[in-house]
Amino acid sequence: MKKVVLIFTCFFVLIQLYAEDGYNLWLRYNPVENKTLLTSYKQQITGIHFSGSSPTLLAAKEEILNGLNGLLQRKTPLTSLISNGTVIIGNSSSAQIAKAGLQNELKQINQEGFIIVTKTIAGKKCIIITGNSEVGVLYGSFHFLRLLQTHQPVNNLRIISSPKLKLRLLNHWDNLNRTVERGYAGFSIWNWHTLPNYIDKRYIDYARANASVGINGTVLTNVNANATILTKTWLEKVKALADVFRPYGIKVYLTARFSAPIELARMKTADPLNDSVRQWWVEKVKEIYSIIPDFGGFLVKANSEGQPGPQDYKRNHADGANMLADAVAPYGGIVMWRAFVYNPESNDRFKQAYEEFQPLDGKFRKNVMVQVKNGPIDFQPREPFSPLFGAMPKTPLMMEFQLTQEYVGQGTHLFYEAPWFKEVLEADTYTKGRGSMVAKVIDGTLDDHELTGMAGVSNIGNDINWCGHPFAQANWYALGRLSWDHELSSATIATEWIRQTFSNDKKAVTGIQKIMLNSHEALVNYMTPLGLTHIMYNGHHYGPMPWGNTLNRPDWNPVYYHRADSFGVGFDRTAKGTNALAQYKPEVRKQFEDINNCPDDYLLWFHHASWNHTMKSGRSLWNELCYRYNTGVDSVKSIIKQWNSLEKFIDKDRFVQVKQLLNIQLNDAVWWRNACLLYFQTFSKMPIPAQYEQPDKTLEHYRSIRVLFAPGN
Amino acid sequence: MKKVVLIFTCFFVLIQLYAEDGYNLWLRYNPVENKTLLTSYKQQITGIHFSGSSPTLLAAKEEILNGLNGLLQRKTPLTSLISNGTVIIGNSSSAQIAKAGLQNELKQINQEGFIIVTKTIAGKKCIIITGNSEVGVLYGSFHFLRLLQTHQPVNNLRIISSPKLKLRLLNHWDNLNRTVERGYAGFSIWNWHTLPNYIDKRYIDYARANASVGINGTVLTNVNANATILTKTWLEKVKALADVFRPYGIKVYLTARFSAPIELARMKTADPLNDSVRQWWVEKVKEIYSIIPDFGGFLVKANSEGQPGPQDYKRNHADGANMLADAVAPYGGIVMWRAFVYNPESNDRFKQAYEEFQPLDGKFRKNVMVQVKNGPIDFQPREPFSPLFGAMPKTPLMMEFQLTQEYVGQGTHLFYEAPWFKEVLEADTYTKGRGSMVAKVIDGTLDDHELTGMAGVSNIGNDINWCGHPFAQANWYALGRLSWDHELSSATIATEWIRQTFSNDKKAVTGIQKIMLNSHEALVNYMTPLGLTHIMYNGHHYGPMPWGNTLNRPDWNPVYYHRADSFGVGFDRTAKGTNALAQYKPEVRKQFEDINNCPDDYLLWFHHASWNHTMKSGRSLWNELCYRYNTGVDSVKSIIKQWNSLEKFIDKDRFVQVKQLLNIQLNDAVWWRNACLLYFQTFSKMPIPAQYEQPDKTLEHYRSIRVLFAPGN
Repeated sequence: MKKVVLIFTCFFVLIQLYAEDGYNLWLRYNPVENKTLLTSYKQQITGIHFSGSSPTLLAAKEEILNGLNGLLQRKTPLTSLISNGTVIIGNSSSAQIAKAGLQNELKQINQEGFIIVTKTIAGKKCIIITGNSEVGVLYGSFHFLRLLQTHQPVNNLRIISSPKLKLRLLNHWDNLNRTVERGYAGFSIWNWHTLPNYIDKRYIDYARANASVGINGTVLTNVNANATILTKTWLEKVKALADVFRPYGIKVYLTARFSAPIELARMKTADPLNDSVRQWWVEKVKEIYSIIPDFGGFLVKANSEGQPGPQDYKRNHADGANMLADAVAPYGGIVMWRAFVYNPESNDRFKQAYEEFQPLDGKFRKNVMVQVKNGPIDFQPREPFSPLFGAMPKTPLMMEFQLTQEYVGQGTHLFYEAPWFKEVLEADTYTKGRGSMVAKVIDGTLDDHELTGMAGVSNIGNDINWCGHPFAQANWYALGRLSWDHELSSATIATEWIRQTFSNDKKAVTGIQKIMLNSHEALVNYMTPLGLTHIMYNGHHYGPMPWGNTLNRPDWNPVYYHRADSFGVGFDRTAKGTNALAQYKPEVRKQFEDINNCPDDYLLWFHHASWNHTMKSGRSLWNELCYRYNTGVDSVKSIIKQWNSLEKFIDKDRFVQVKQLLNIQLNDAVWWRNACLLYFQTFSKMPIPAQYEQPDKTLEHYRSIRVLFAPGN
Repeated sequence: MKKVVLIFTCFFVLIQLYAEDGYNLWLRYNPVENKTLLTSYKQQITGIHFSGSSPTLLAAKEEILNGLNGLLQRKTPLTSLISNGTVIIGNSSSAQIAKAGLQNELKQINQEGFIIVTKTIAGKKCIIITGNSEVGVLYGSFHFLRLLQTHQPVNNLRIISSPKLKLRLLNHWDNLNRTVERGYAGFSIWNWHTLPNYIDKRYIDYARANASVGINGTVLTNVNANATILTKTWLEKVKALADVFRPYGIKVYLTARFSAPIELARMKTADPLNDSVRQWWVEKVKEIYSIIPDFGGFLVKANSEGQPGPQDYKRNHADGANMLADAVAPYGGIVMWRAFVYNPESNDRFKQAYEEFQPLDGKFRKNVMVQVKNGPIDFQPREPFSPLFGAMPKTPLMMEFQLTQEYVGQGTHLFYEAPWFKEVLEADTYTKGRGSMVAKVIDGTLDDHELTGMAGVSNIGNDINWCGHPFAQANWYALGRLSWDHELSSATIATEWIRQTFSNDKKAVTGIQKIMLNSHEALVNYMTPLGLTHIMYNGHHYGPMPWGNTLNRPDWNPVYYHRADSFGVGFDRTAKGTNALAQYKPEVRKQFEDINNCPDDYLLWFHHASWNHTMKSGRSLWNELCYRYNTGVDSVKSIIKQWNSLEKFIDKDRFVQVKQLLNIQLNDAVWWRNACLLYFQTFSKMPIPAQYEQPDKTLEHYRSIRVLFAPGN
């Protein structure tokens, strides 16, 4: 017994020493603490019968063995026999599985899907994990480990699961010098200098984490692209990463700088209709595929924020995209062409992507996807869905979400993004009548597309815990899960993540989930309530600057977006204004165009409303604004209280980390509230109702704040 | 027993899972594997009697308890009683220690020193750890843990130790945007954006690591300075770090941008003799000390590589340094003024620091140190000692070493720096006759200075393992140990580090030590043998570029340094040349000035020698050059063989990491050898002797290599 105690002591010392730096993400495989459950798992999982020896299957095998070692606190044996509790893993053609009578189930899943079923084979109760492809088996293995990590029963399994989207991608805005545009988690994890000869363990763990949530592609480079990545020396580096990722079902993609022929080959033009230019891309693509045979394709930001593009040669986006698409088509590659375009000539930035892209519907090659941000502006805390969704039925549209929290608290605010994403996915475009949700546009069911996809702008850096804020990991997780199945609820995804990342204790799960689910509304309220938008500091985008009016591009100035004056505030996008609402179907338009019916949350997106306008609550607009900003601050206070109450469930390091960050978030929330209310008050000329905390600093003070060397630039 | 086995399994699973990411540096406190030794330690260490509750003493207590928990695999109890095996820790005034009769020992140590002695108290055999100050107790505690980590006997201890230098500093070349100039380990660990409200655990662990080797100060900011750090908002961030570091005996210092009065106060001048300028600094320093009462002082790079300085106003370095020194003097602050100056007007960069600084000897305030790089040029793989050492007896000189491997393999080469440092520390200046070693100049014994110090340019970044290359940690460690005691041998320091960082197994220790001790000579041979210097690529400094001749500053071009022509190669610094040798004492000069007596290792530093010059080996200079470059490559091959033979002693992660890096090092060594020999061959017109590997690529190939986006810029 003394020995046991000693070893226990040692054990806990170690746990404490290496405790929870966040590196292992949601793949911690900590011992199942519940003894009854642990015993039951051990009885139901007695050995692993594994078929196959390809790199993908070996990755699955290693994950299962490591995962079970950690979870069940013992080495689970590999076995060639079938006994009660054998977990049979392999693809559908392997001997044991082919004869298990799963043809029906296998027909229900697609090429990347998996099934996990309990079966009695020759009188022995077994669990079978399989799929139509090797990567399906890998996904199934990760899902099985997820069941155990989240303490789900495994005694009678019948899980049949396929991804609803074909492309499930991360977009890294990582520069070749390892800075990350809008990155708040350190340097880029791509250490280009030591590639291709040095394979950082992190690359493998990145692949594991992605595969565990079904992410099957990664764009390695910033959309503000550098042509250097397309040179041979650098393609060899890309190949090294592709080789690491391949077993995990992950393809690599690159951003293509449209002017690369000029920069790399000293050509005089990058005109997409010029034969030499087209031939240059054909040769370049040939070279890429000779190095990386399963290269995924290109992501392109063109004629946007200073990037070169086809319009430089009086060609349109389709001309540009199709040139690249033709080059990659022979190899099965695709082109993702971003619809994020705007320029100061337009009278409403809201409308521009639609105006440029909608007329091109039907003009793109089959292997082109147009990648559309969730909203019409730019990843603001709350945006109506982009009117392009539903407006380009002949073109597969790819959803672009932003995981990195550029406008939503950056590295310091706890902000769970699934509710933000779901708000758009579940919005109804009415393109083909009620129920034409954005999700159905992007999953191809509405317009019958096979090429479907969702991308998340990565929030990953070389911080030990990958994402900076411990809760930012949840957004990476959520992107993976939603791109696999957009019908999963925010709450379900949060629960899964919490159980794997923090604790299976019910109080902890409930408490943390509450925090996460409240975080979106809280942030919208303290930053941009009632449909305010884009009133952040210019350049680094941290903190409020509603007074911003000095940039020579009006569409970069906050005043362009809120249009506050002595009458009221908000952007009139009705027929009396810019008529941006006309880009939506009538049913959608109808929801927003009447100022008296427009939902409060979107009011100032579509209306220039009087300070005295009566809101749904009966309050005046001004009073409602005061109410909302204060509600936002109060929500952060509640979140802090909630977090502090969970101390006993959380490891010390992460508890302290989050506690400190929440205090920064509260400071920032107060800063937003005070700066915005004081500023808008110069127009409304009304008092902040006495029941609210009054700003303790002047507007001049807030206007004088300069955040120097903010990250992410 | 079954339980025991299960728990053991679990235990090893955990060890494996969290295995050796390098974060814990040399403070791993892994269980003592040798059972006999473990048993003996447990008998000799039965409890901790701890006095004191100041932050520094609490830090010592926590470290001892955590360390023992890990090492001895049990909780060592705190006790108020004295028994056999009690470890009594406290400062000299604490009750138990005051009466222990250690007055003699305590007189032998200085204010930061410690003693660790075995004593029998009231018939009980105890170990006492104490010092004249709290930080002495902390250092003693760390030393005691080092004894255990390196498996030293603790049965009869009598260790009396004081640091030989007063200032033992790291210099961070960290920019406010978190890039690190010449940094190869990721971003800066200073996350300025989240300071002062967010205290990264890393700050505490940084302080622990430094205190464990006696480092007692840190200059947080780059010598290429930004005045922003001196503004109130940023000083609050600095204060937060100072508060974390204070318990660990570490003071913070900042770099002062000389033109700060212009940049921050819109003054028209920064002339150090201008009253308003002087007053501005007085006020600024007052502000700093009001925020950080124990602020250490300033490090200044002035009139060097474009930095502003007193010469901009026709004043000299003493004028500039004294202005700042006067401002900090009332608070006990110091100024470290760098002697790293050169400009293209000089006929020999070697001579310039001496020419500018030596005449100022005696002109500096008492609280000014002149900080001198080890050699006259710039941290090259091998340099003769700087002639300033010994030439400024009235001025305390601080040694500046470079830990970050700017010119010595950057992030990818295994290079143990202690032998490099020792070469200079042990060089004899002959200032006061034989035995006037550089070490005695800097430790104050030669010229009777109290203010003494050594600084290492930090190699720390936010990589998980802090330093990038796993072996780079050893250089941080060595700087600390050498600044405590420059008489420690490179081998001793290596052994300590290996035992704490990798393994106590004798074969592992011997094998790894051999690799480390050979690494300096290997690198000199494959990069710059025989006194070649500064022939690396310009800008990023990675790889060879002996042909470099295109920068408009001649003293940045490699050809300036090697002067190869059809006659021979090397820089004539004798009386017939630039006469730089005249800056040394005659005894030193005599070692170098006769081409036939000059040691091979320094030949080309001081002579333009014929390609046919006969070397000590009997070979011609050209053949010797071929021999040395090939020896360098062969040494790397031997190191690789040696490392591979150690696989069973090393955890998998670090074994693979180092193995991959060694292969990069071998590629680079071949690159250096081939590029340099092919280039110098265009002058020597001689063949590379047939017994050596012949270059498999042309000189044109090597000249065409461009390393884009190299780190550290």
